[in-house]
Amino acid sequence: MRTELEAGILERVKPDLQERTRLRTLIRALSRKVKDKAQELGIRYEEVLVVGSIAKETNLAGTDLDLFVLFPPDTPRQEFEEQGLLLAKSVMDGEERFAEHPYLHGEVDGVEVDLVPSYKVLDPSKKLSAVDRTPFHTEFVRKNLSEKARDEVRLLKQFMKGIDVYGAEARVEGFSGYLTELLVIKYGSFREVLEAASGWERGLCLSLTGGSLKLDSALVFIDPTDAGRNVAAALSDESFGRFIHAASCYLAGPSEKFFFPEPVSTLGEKELRAAMDARGSFFAGLVFTHPDVVDDVFYPQVNKCVKTVMRDAQSLGFSPIHADYFEDDGKVLVVVELESGQLSTVKKHRGPWVWHDNSKDFLEKYRESVKVISGPYIQKGRWMVDLRRDEIWYVDTLKGRVPEMNLGKNINEEVAKGFEVLDPGSLMEHPMELSAFLDHNFPWER
Amino acid sequence: MRTELEAGILERVKPDLQERTRLRTLIRALSRKVKDKAQELGIRYEEVLVVGSIAKETNLAGTDLDLFVLFPPDTPRQEFEEQGLLLAKSVMDGEERFAEHPYLHGEVDGVEVDLVPSYKVLDPSKKLSAVDRTPFHTEFVRKNLSEKARDEVRLLKQFMKGIDVYGAEARVEGFSGYLTELLVIKYGSFREVLEAASGWERGLCLSLTGGSLKLDSALVFIDPTDAGRNVAAALSDESFGRFIHAASCYLAGPSEKFFFPEPVSTLGEKELRAAMDARGSFFAGLVFTHPDVVDDVFYPQVNKCVKTVMRDAQSLGFSPIHADYFEDDGKVLVVVELESGQLSTVKKHRGPWVWHDNSKDFLEKYRESVKVISGPYIQKGRWMVDLRRDEIWYVDTLKGRVPEMNLGKNINEEVAKGFEVLDPGSLMEHPMELSAFLDHNFPWER
Repeated sequence: MRTELEAGILERVKPDLQERTRLRTLIRALSRKVKDKAQELGIRYEEVLVVGSIAKETNLAGTDLDLFVLFPPDTPRQEFEEQGLLLAKSVMDGEERFAEHPYLHGEVDGVEVDLVPSYKVLDPSKKLSAVDRTPFHTEFVRKNLSEKARDEVRLLKQFMKGIDVYGAEARVEGFSGYLTELLVIKYGSFREVLEAASGWERGLCLSLTGGSLKLDSALVFIDPTDAGRNVAAALSDESFGRFIHAASCYLAGPSEKFFFPEPVSTLGEKELRAAMDARGSFFAGLVFTHPDVVDDVFYPQVNKCVKTVMRDAQSLGFSPIHADYFEDDGKVLVVVELESGQLSTVKKHRGPWVWHDNSKDFLEKYRESVKVISGPYIQKGRWMVDLRRDEIWYVDTLKGRVPEMNLGKNINEEVAKGFEVLDPGSLMEHPMELSAFLDHNFPWER
Repeated sequence: MRTELEAGILERVKPDLQERTRLRTLIRALSRKVKDKAQELGIRYEEVLVVGSIAKETNLAGTDLDLFVLFPPDTPRQEFEEQGLLLAKSVMDGEERFAEHPYLHGEVDGVEVDLVPSYKVLDPSKKLSAVDRTPFHTEFVRKNLSEKARDEVRLLKQFMKGIDVYGAEARVEGFSGYLTELLVIKYGSFREVLEAASGWERGLCLSLTGGSLKLDSALVFIDPTDAGRNVAAALSDESFGRFIHAASCYLAGPSEKFFFPEPVSTLGEKELRAAMDARGSFFAGLVFTHPDVVDDVFYPQVNKCVKTVMRDAQSLGFSPIHADYFEDDGKVLVVVELESGQLSTVKKHRGPWVWHDNSKDFLEKYRESVKVISGPYIQKGRWMVDLRRDEIWYVDTLKGRVPEMNLGKNINEEVAKGFEVLDPGSLMEHPMELSAFLDHNFPWER
């Protein structure tokens, strides 16, 4: 049973007649153009196939069109890549993109199109390139998802978009479109998926075909077209947990905000200061140029970068509380919140028992060391020494240590060219990012 | 072989002819007086016995005279206590003291005297009161310690005094006089004890009579008069470790300072401020009236008090570095050094996994709590919440918490009557204690 709210959401997100007509026309035109150009260029291919959510009729309004050009499996890999791209470029103008192999992304008649070369294989477990299994997914969903249930998928997708867990890509580490479709096939409807999810536990194994897989994954959903594959492999604990929680919140109090959350409101200078003062903590920022790499390279790297900054602060004693990144205008801004921006100079360091063999080395190391403020002395039978911290101001510390940190290959390269460390005052010049950083509400709670 | 240094030390610490003559005369006079008074009072006793270091001729100059009045083992306990004290009081003026049972402490002809009632038992393992084994120790040492070795004991005692590990009492938790004597009997001389000690490890079991005891003790020395007893039971890891280290330091570079250390020099205001600033840490103090209890009650309690203050600071997040106590003029001053005297208001608190059963309780607890600054939110699949710390200034915190802390019975009672918490400024008014607190050198390094 769809509620009035859900019916209203569906109306907003389902492609209208005009879009559907435009897509049909476009698909016909592009398929013909591939055929003509292939003939001209002497390129041998098997067929042109619409795949993805448009083919499955589970697409949200404005979704990219995924058009696959299927090559015979005996096409050598290099030829497959070169001819695939050559053919695509002859069909439309566009930008060359690269996942596992190159494809073309362009805009035709107001629709974003991905023209992707693929191998036509007979069994998805025998794939030759990363995308070869997509047509099997498309076929499975077309066969197993009822017409009415397609709209349930659209609702689920929009819900996941709203709570920011939609998409298997590295930025989100959430639910792929295919996974949402399988969930609706499994449970029947948007609401039934949510009801089930509100009781999920980590490690759950779902399947349409029986069998089970033991994997260390938040969720396992066995691919019905390839029993050895987990469709939910990309799902992080974070997205899994967020979906579980959002599902039970929605069931307890449905609202449009789950599907279409308000953006974080940007606080004014006074409000920002008040929010920071109320926390009584220290804030710093790190700015560098956004590396020019694809998303699937950038996002894992920037996550690693944030984690490294946190760990480094932790290891030095600056109890970090939060860290996050923001992208803006070709720059990346990493914001860190710490319990304190300044540490004591002195730091107690524990050594071996006085009677232990290591005592001699410990005494030799620290007796003459310039880093020692006092000691070595004995406490309850153990050697102790009070050392001088080199790093007591976080802003200076970060400045000095960033060039030596392992932040990921491409970020390291950008940082080598230059970076900026922001103190709390300079951070105030980024009110939008700082407001978002300070906002710990769920999107639907704003 | 005694060095010139050691010979010089011995000359300073060994009682001179005058003291020895005075002691002999005094012992005779007191013994006679006990006999006369006992007759007068109709008190039945077995004998008067000089025990302790004077009897063993291992005494340092100025040592108290220990005179035991031995009662027959069939004396009822109450009669033993009452008559013992009555007899002692008739012999000399003095102050009633209490260990396991009462005894009298007084000064006669410039000598400090302890007049102690004791049972005359035939076997130290069958003792009726705590001091009954003392005569056996006295006898054992008199028989087994050569005349020359007595001076070795005196050197060892003075060495241990200088490095502050001499005495089994609660303040020191060090080596008893009897233990120093046994060590010299075991190893032969002051120097040989040090040579052995520089290689000691915790858990070592020493014996003159064979056998061994498995005890969790820094050192085990089986009592030659009672094989079930560890003479070193009171020795702490701290004193054990300090002696090991001092022994090897002395052997590497002998100096008078081991026997007679310089006192800690009291720093002036400027020097104190400089020393504190160099550490970049925070200092606070707690002052209360010295409870009127015997040392063996007070010292364990004040150690517990210091430990409690440290643990409490730790549990609140104020990384404590050092804490120690000082006694002055009927007051006790506990000094604490912390990495910081102020914490961030915000504190991150980790909850259960989102999918865990406890999530519901966690959300219920924190959703409406006034202690929450932000959240609950999800981080990597776990519930988190940013809480407001009640305690962010250490001085205020300590003021508020001291009355609730378990600092030991008698200290709790004093604190209930009143206490004072000192901030760094007020601590400066205790330059002697603060100087000692800041000095982490060994006594012989001053």
